[in-house]
Amino acid sequence: MDKFSGKIGVIGAGALGALYGARMARAGYDVHFLMRSDADTVRREGLSIRSAQGDFTIRPPVSTTPEEMGVCDLVLVGLKATDNGALPSILPPLVGPNTLILTLQNGLGNEDEIARVLAPEHPDIRTRILGGIAFLCSNRIAPGVIHHIEYGHVRIAEFTGPAQPRTHLIGKLFTDAELGCVVSDSLMHIRWEKLVWNIPFNGLGVGAEDADTRVVLDDPELRAVARGLMEETILAATADGVTITPDFPDTMMSYSEGMGPYKSSMQLDYANGRPLEVEPILGEPCRRALAAGLAVPRLQMLYGIVRRRDRLNRR
Amino acid sequence: MDKFSGKIGVIGAGALGALYGARMARAGYDVHFLMRSDADTVRREGLSIRSAQGDFTIRPPVSTTPEEMGVCDLVLVGLKATDNGALPSILPPLVGPNTLILTLQNGLGNEDEIARVLAPEHPDIRTRILGGIAFLCSNRIAPGVIHHIEYGHVRIAEFTGPAQPRTHLIGKLFTDAELGCVVSDSLMHIRWEKLVWNIPFNGLGVGAEDADTRVVLDDPELRAVARGLMEETILAATADGVTITPDFPDTMMSYSEGMGPYKSSMQLDYANGRPLEVEPILGEPCRRALAAGLAVPRLQMLYGIVRRRDRLNRR
Repeated sequence: MDKFSGKIGVIGAGALGALYGARMARAGYDVHFLMRSDADTVRREGLSIRSAQGDFTIRPPVSTTPEEMGVCDLVLVGLKATDNGALPSILPPLVGPNTLILTLQNGLGNEDEIARVLAPEHPDIRTRILGGIAFLCSNRIAPGVIHHIEYGHVRIAEFTGPAQPRTHLIGKLFTDAELGCVVSDSLMHIRWEKLVWNIPFNGLGVGAEDADTRVVLDDPELRAVARGLMEETILAATADGVTITPDFPDTMMSYSEGMGPYKSSMQLDYANGRPLEVEPILGEPCRRALAAGLAVPRLQMLYGIVRRRDRLNRR
Repeated sequence: MDKFSGKIGVIGAGALGALYGARMARAGYDVHFLMRSDADTVRREGLSIRSAQGDFTIRPPVSTTPEEMGVCDLVLVGLKATDNGALPSILPPLVGPNTLILTLQNGLGNEDEIARVLAPEHPDIRTRILGGIAFLCSNRIAPGVIHHIEYGHVRIAEFTGPAQPRTHLIGKLFTDAELGCVVSDSLMHIRWEKLVWNIPFNGLGVGAEDADTRVVLDDPELRAVARGLMEETILAATADGVTITPDFPDTMMSYSEGMGPYKSSMQLDYANGRPLEVEPILGEPCRRALAAGLAVPRLQMLYGIVRRRDRLNRR
């Protein structure tokens, strides 16, 4: 099988982007990192991954401005969606006429946002965007040091249309990096499937105040609400032409039962006073459902509550 | 018209009970107060009402135990529903074979709880209970001193069956006390009508974090949720045989628009670390709707969220 050849630029080199980029670099790929606060440390001491799957340090090319990084063949977007406001200043210098962009951000609307930023210069940009879902548990524990706790596999797909040969080449980037990868023919399908879990457990994690999976599952009301939110998410998915089988909530509930008391990323962000990914995880799914005339009372309520808590939390 | 004659015992002589009892005493009725922490002050200095409608002080009979107070002709229950655990120790000494009991507590289930406490001794007790809704804004600002800010009118009804002559006699207690009173033929009707406002604005006041009426009405999602909760409450009312017209939410929304930024009692209780009236305002309505097979997704979600926040708030 062919290998992806070319320059890979990682933007948003935090717990997700830095881990993925470092693993790809270790596998022999040409990975460049855009860094701000960590740049000096990484130039001096390298980028270190601490992981049960093996510790290692790489000494990659690091840029502190997108102009310095220059045009890439593939841009890997690891920014938190709450930092998307930075996309117009970051992306244009990295994107040439053939550049592909893969966003591994959560929820809905990130591909559209990237397309909006680049479309004036690149009318064909939507056909060069890919999206993915990362199943990853990792933290940045110090400048240039990432603690990889568990998982790391991804599901990726083209933003427009089914998988192409290039989609599989990019998938091989991940498997070469010893990260599982499933290539899907429908980005909306993998995004909505992930939302069936993310909406209830990220949303209630904050909406029901610091509620981990165990708290939600052990409370009869919150448990019923989580189940109802899953059903509403499946309903909302139909507005994007995505069919998810009605037994999927059962699968997700049993899966969650087996997780132990798990704190969602939104719950952790809230506890640490960081901005929440309210719009891609709750707002955009809610808007799409309402625009299609669907009733999603729990989702709308959770969106309203979490959006308010996020605003108050940032003051 | 006849006048209610007999001994009136006020239990839960806080901002509500003390104000109503004092006004009735001023009007010439024989009102006794059960007090704990305020008893000494009131015996020494009287019970004082500060009000735009006139300040006054009364020197009423005060008991510190229900045994000391003894059997009453009418017991006025002004306890917060969260203190209902004290009913079994308070009520029995006050209730003889003809005693009437009027509870002005919020929400659903308080009459049932009173009946449960007294039924073994008084098999007919359900027919001697009345319930009411108070529209009142007042605070206890010091021992024996109540600040009456605004309103004060009540709606009352028999727990079982339509209004009787005695219901009107008790209604006259309030009008003699210069407090408006409407006597209704259906307790469940007045309770559910009040819940149409209380469920969204008390519930979201805490569920959406310190959200006054203005916050809820100005947020498009929370506003839609409040409206949806009103509709669910009207649906839930049908389970109790109560019909509320479908335009009532419009009325309640406009009424709320005119209130200015109003903090509900639940919002204030939460902010002050006091226990919330979760069960009568959210839990019992939710349970009645679910038991009748009705879908009340917003109410169930709000109940789950507020119940959890209440528990965490009391730790």
